[in-house]
Amino acid sequence: MIHRILAAELPRHIGHHVRLAGWLHRRRELKSVSFLVVRDRSGLAQAVLHEPVAIPEETVVELTGTVVANPQAPGGAELASPAVRVLSEAVEAPPFDLYRPGVPAALPTVLDHAPVALRHPRLRAPFEIAAAGVAGFRAALDELGFTETQTPKIVGTATESGANVFGIDYFGRPAFLAQSPQFFKQALVGVFERVYEVGPVFRAEPHDTARHLAQYTSLDAELGFIDDHRDVMAVLTRALAGMHAAATERAGDALALLGVEPPRVPEEIPAIHFADAQELLARMTGEDPRGEPDLAPAHERWLGEWALREHGSEFLFVTGYPMVKRPFYTHPDPERPEFSRSFDLLFRGLELVTGGQRLHRHSDYLAALTARGDDPEAYAGYLAAFAHGMPPHGGFAIGLERWTSRLTGAANIRQTTLFPRDLHRLSP
Amino acid sequence: MIHRILAAELPRHIGHHVRLAGWLHRRRELKSVSFLVVRDRSGLAQAVLHEPVAIPEETVVELTGTVVANPQAPGGAELASPAVRVLSEAVEAPPFDLYRPGVPAALPTVLDHAPVALRHPRLRAPFEIAAAGVAGFRAALDELGFTETQTPKIVGTATESGANVFGIDYFGRPAFLAQSPQFFKQALVGVFERVYEVGPVFRAEPHDTARHLAQYTSLDAELGFIDDHRDVMAVLTRALAGMHAAATERAGDALALLGVEPPRVPEEIPAIHFADAQELLARMTGEDPRGEPDLAPAHERWLGEWALREHGSEFLFVTGYPMVKRPFYTHPDPERPEFSRSFDLLFRGLELVTGGQRLHRHSDYLAALTARGDDPEAYAGYLAAFAHGMPPHGGFAIGLERWTSRLTGAANIRQTTLFPRDLHRLSP
Repeated sequence: MIHRILAAELPRHIGHHVRLAGWLHRRRELKSVSFLVVRDRSGLAQAVLHEPVAIPEETVVELTGTVVANPQAPGGAELASPAVRVLSEAVEAPPFDLYRPGVPAALPTVLDHAPVALRHPRLRAPFEIAAAGVAGFRAALDELGFTETQTPKIVGTATESGANVFGIDYFGRPAFLAQSPQFFKQALVGVFERVYEVGPVFRAEPHDTARHLAQYTSLDAELGFIDDHRDVMAVLTRALAGMHAAATERAGDALALLGVEPPRVPEEIPAIHFADAQELLARMTGEDPRGEPDLAPAHERWLGEWALREHGSEFLFVTGYPMVKRPFYTHPDPERPEFSRSFDLLFRGLELVTGGQRLHRHSDYLAALTARGDDPEAYAGYLAAFAHGMPPHGGFAIGLERWTSRLTGAANIRQTTLFPRDLHRLSP
Repeated sequence: MIHRILAAELPRHIGHHVRLAGWLHRRRELKSVSFLVVRDRSGLAQAVLHEPVAIPEETVVELTGTVVANPQAPGGAELASPAVRVLSEAVEAPPFDLYRPGVPAALPTVLDHAPVALRHPRLRAPFEIAAAGVAGFRAALDELGFTETQTPKIVGTATESGANVFGIDYFGRPAFLAQSPQFFKQALVGVFERVYEVGPVFRAEPHDTARHLAQYTSLDAELGFIDDHRDVMAVLTRALAGMHAAATERAGDALALLGVEPPRVPEEIPAIHFADAQELLARMTGEDPRGEPDLAPAHERWLGEWALREHGSEFLFVTGYPMVKRPFYTHPDPERPEFSRSFDLLFRGLELVTGGQRLHRHSDYLAALTARGDDPEAYAGYLAAFAHGMPPHGGFAIGLERWTSRLTGAANIRQTTLFPRDLHRLSP
């Protein structure tokens, strides 16, 4: 049997006898001629037959025939009068036409029928971009001497917050799904200095919104021997630049199909301190947010516009968020201890990444927990690493689905999640 | 402040003033001289001071001084009379000496104190090999046109087997932790043709053995448009070759420390059919396993020795396992339907990977489920993808921790798991 070629390779085989295999994407019957469009992982290819073809769309077919030039065909080539063999029948019609350029279905229909709906090129494209982005994230951090790790998703205590965790029956004992690899990645800074993990995290989010998921993919990084949070911001900048470069290189077709161009990541992303941001907002807008411990979404949007106007950047770091709004392991600014050495990265005025420097001294952890009214004994497992000498360190976490949705302009994060899990959805 | 260099870079800086930072790995006080060995992510470096240094091991330190040549020092260079600054104190002694070449502690001690125990270079080394192996797996499959995916770890039904699943309280509804991405990766063959996923899988294993874990990392791959299981075996061979090549290239120091040389993966791994393996065993050993539906561990070991003797290969595929021992989605051998188009890959006589061709026709699934006495309705979600045209496909899953343990000769799979989860262990 002759070697299978991909649809995208057809124009390179004009004059040759080839074999294509894929899904029957579209069938059009004219009076004396049938057009078949076949879809495979590389794209679409057209075949012309001078007889009717009674095969429903999404049937898996194999076409064997000669490639001829045709300026009207996609790629300028088509298969002339091929032999058609059915590899596998489609016994049901798709919930909507997969061959239409747009998606003629509402999101719930798409999600209910994900195994077939995701075959639509526009619905598949975000995941090609996501796969490329993850590859770029890893490549950037590998280059910087990071080690990839895998850590437990089942934990005995819910460290970060008691709320919004999923409980498990663990051999008759209560346990929880990990909300983040925070504890593990910090402990592993003591082992590898620089670590990253790409893995699922779980939030029992009771909110039914366009941006909450019960499971998402967290791109976590943590590094030791930093001076302060700015070293973390520099690594994040490299990671993001790697993600955007990889998306362009490895998922160019998917970006083009969605009409998306990944924005340039500046060598140094502009940064503004939280207090200065509030000053700026008070001075430039009608409102005065000073005294508030966080930025309102409208203020983040305003700052995003400001960064684009003043710095020509779609990205903006806001640093120094008040300690009161950050987790207990956050490192304070020694000179202004009410502010933290943490940051949010805004992209087009929306929060994309959170990170910062963490406490590293055992005594600082004891003091921080006690000050918050927590019993350090309850955190004994978490604190063990810090009793044995931990360097100044920090890190960040990028939500993969969020990154893809912000980049592609998806209205709902479920559009960038293959099989979303939320308050209502547990299948497919 | 001068730029930090890594321990391994010291010999390249003889005559220069440098800054090192890391953990105080070892301190030796002689009459008039102190030797400090500092450990960072690159290795060890020695410093000599002409004064006593009262700092306990595992303290995080920064040394600034001039590099001098010393043939006795590791790498032929050392830091002469550096200034020593404590970055972070060790407030507890490690559970055992991290500086001894061997590991002077039993496995339970190591696991109980993992955040500090893993700093021992011999205990850290398997994870450097694992990280390299995963990178090699991905590189090999990327090269072959695979797309990386992330799929749900929370599922509504326990498809593969009702036993050994962890139950979750999912917003008040019962749900389960996924035992494998089997359903999702098959459905995604319909979208991307070729997919892989690196992620956690969960087994509520009631066995307390050296090889069972409640969570492990599964390297899953699935590909469409195959002729039969041999196409899957060819891709697995490429993936394994990629893993071994990457281990050698990226984790050479870790392999050397453990005295491990990754075995050559043959271009074509020898294969023997299950029935022929039983014939061979009957003819060559005192026993007659014919009629048994599976191979006993002793028989796998014998076959491993046979493959090495006859084919010079430490790897051996055993193909065609009886259908009765394989999951319902397994594709039978059309010519001998009691045998399957599945395989096990043995490495040094131990099972390393399982895989095979799957059913792809909707009607075949209905028949297979009905024949086993299962109600296809219970599998409606799983079957949806197959109603819409699925190509002949197959795949495999490699347990990362198992691969690392077999490669490094670890006696217990917990030695190749950062923070193992088992019947008894839920922390750290």
